[in-house]
Amino acid sequence: MKRVTILLVAVATLAGVVAFTAPTSRHADQEAAPIFVTKIPPGYRDWRLISVAREEGNLNDIRAILGNDVAIKAYREGRLPFPDGAIIARLAWSYDASEENNKVFGRPQSFVAGSPKNGVQFMVKDSKKYASTGGWGFAQFDDGKPAGDAVLNTCFACHANIKNRDLVFTHYAP
Amino acid sequence: MKRVTILLVAVATLAGVVAFTAPTSRHADQEAAPIFVTKIPPGYRDWRLISVAREEGNLNDIRAILGNDVAIKAYREGRLPFPDGAIIARLAWSYDASEENNKVFGRPQSFVAGSPKNGVQFMVKDSKKYASTGGWGFAQFDDGKPAGDAVLNTCFACHANIKNRDLVFTHYAP
Repeated sequence: MKRVTILLVAVATLAGVVAFTAPTSRHADQEAAPIFVTKIPPGYRDWRLISVAREEGNLNDIRAILGNDVAIKAYREGRLPFPDGAIIARLAWSYDASEENNKVFGRPQSFVAGSPKNGVQFMVKDSKKYASTGGWGFAQFDDGKPAGDAVLNTCFACHANIKNRDLVFTHYAP
Repeated sequence: MKRVTILLVAVATLAGVVAFTAPTSRHADQEAAPIFVTKIPPGYRDWRLISVAREEGNLNDIRAILGNDVAIKAYREGRLPFPDGAIIARLAWSYDASEENNKVFGRPQSFVAGSPKNGVQFMVKDSKKYASTGGWGFAQFDDGKPAGDAVLNTCFACHANIKNRDLVFTHYAP
């Protein structure tokens, strides 16, 4: 009985130590590791259109880039860098030949958006919160679930290459 | 002077006859000739996204299909036929390889929306007004100017082939 008590105390103490040190070590990491966006911005499917694109290669999708009101306003005013509060969403779908359309057109020419693909991605501008990643927080949600750090770590690495456009690839489609 | 008066009366009478007969003959034509939409629906660039597509062949563009509130609601509820008041807009741009993006990705994979191309098209649902063309009025504007009847006559001819979808090609992209 005594041994069990000691064991329980030891486990409890260890748990306490872990609980105590975890936030501290996470805090210490903050300057080095990027902070990611963990919640899907609500209502993003209702946002206005920035542009469309097609990615070949491994991505092999067709996509739409939407912006919240702050992002759309900045785009239309040609404002760079984007102001805090701007959010850009990237939706993507499989790139499907449309048999239905091609039958009407009489030739294979029509490619449409199929099932959602490659997750839904967001860039959230907050120059203080996301200072370590150029002022942008990055996110990807696959079937509504946040992608792991391994995926998200690739976002900033690539977007950092387009510094003269405030890390944003997409131009506004007139 | 008398001759001038008679001439003026004759001209005025002729003008009156023309003014009187023109609407009549236009009315008689209504059942045969389609009626087209002549004004750009205001604010369409702010409408929500229905889907995206790519057309090869002569069109050779990348496009976005937007809907006004009535159209979006009908799409999300899976409602067919579309209710009166629904308007669907088709925007299209040149399909451009993005050197800027490809340089970052290290390979040619990225195609983006370039300059506006193939006009902006609309389908406006009014089952009475556009009864002769399946309840849809068709329009295309090139640089803001309505396309001629020769162009517009091709709209209904092609859309009529997709009757089971109320003449609408585009599916909603989830």
